[in-house]
Amino acid sequence: VTLTTADLIDIRQLLATYGLVVDDHLWDRVDEVFAEDFVFDQSAFGIPDLHGAADVIATFKGRNLYAHHTTDVVITEDVDGTVSVHSKWIGFPNEGPPRSGDYLDVVVRTDAGWRLRRRSAVVRERKFFD
Amino acid sequence: VTLTTADLIDIRQLLATYGLVVDDHLWDRVDEVFAEDFVFDQSAFGIPDLHGAADVIATFKGRNLYAHHTTDVVITEDVDGTVSVHSKWIGFPNEGPPRSGDYLDVVVRTDAGWRLRRRSAVVRERKFFD
Amino acid sequence: VTLTTADLIDIRQLLATYGLVVDDHLWDRVDEVFAEDFVFDQSAFGIPDLHGAADVIATFKGRNLYAHHTTDVVITEDVDGTVSVHSKWIGFPNEGPPRSGDYLDVVVRTDAGWRLRRRSAVVRERKFFD
Repeated sequence: VTLTTADLIDIRQLLATYGLVVDDHLWDRVDEVFAEDFVFDQSAFGIPDLHGAADVIATFKGRNLYAHHTTDVVITEDVDGTVSVHSKWIGFPNEGPPRSGDYLDVVVRTDAGWRLRRRSAVVRERKFFD
Repeated sequence: VTLTTADLIDIRQLLATYGLVVDDHLWDRVDEVFAEDFVFDQSAFGIPDLHGAADVIATFKGRNLYAHHTTDVVITEDVDGTVSVHSKWIGFPNEGPPRSGDYLDVVVRTDAGWRLRRRSAVVRERKFFD
Repeated sequence: VTLTTADLIDIRQLLATYGLVVDDHLWDRVDEVFAEDFVFDQSAFGIPDLHGAADVIATFKGRNLYAHHTTDVVITEDVDGTVSVHSKWIGFPNEGPPRSGDYLDVVVRTDAGWRLRRRSAVVRERKFFD
């Protein structure tokens, strides 16, 4: 494992910054969050991926969630050096009660700091277990 | 205080991993979360404690909360070396709005990393204060 | 930047301790959270600021939120050395569904550790974006 404690804290702060930027529409700060070649993986919804921050912002402008909270950050370094992050989110929609879901991310270290390289957002559905 | 910053981050990641494991039913990864002699303290509900991960899993399979979020992690090292953790949780039940509560934990350092040795989960009830 | 990883973890733990103290009414532990010259900035609500922990406690005793969760902690050190923290909160009111908002804080390092010097709490309102 090559991640330092400083890296682990920076990555947590990156995920927190995401919520601040998208909720306050701080579009001049998107480069603090997203890598240049960022991909928003939409395969969970069967629709094409979003490429680059501009695509993502256009989508967020019409979004239904007005508040994004990130919790339960688990950072893993794979054997090939890929840094994956699994976290959970709570989102407040304009209509109805809060929703819960997961973020599955790949983050990369850039010259300016850690950035999201890939994010997949999944909504967790109510389930009755046996 | 003998806890390093690396310990403090590892313990936070342990609490986060709990949510991922129980919500996704990753029963082959329970040993990443629970110590062998884990006890789930149920005294708050006046029922017997659960002993060991197998007991806990059996209980979780029939649980009513389909998403567990952990926030507000406060780690304390007692004078006798016991490491206690007080955190808060938000749970999404199959019926009704999200609930809030607290986890009162004791964690231990094992050869494989930090693990939950004891957890007590308390539901926080609505209260009107004077 | 002069903040160490230990500082960053301590500040996160400070914000988490706030929730535990105010939700459990641990008024004998307020000095673990608030600096002596603490100011609760109420300008967002157009009312006078609260000065000192005693003022804050009196207000909290009659509060409507019975559970406070803090997420998405972003710590920034300004060029003048001021340490600002932007975080998000989820609050459970005695009536109605959970609310979301933001904390805008200034924290200071004291001999006893990091403390809140100034906090402004803002409620995030539902918005429909174009």
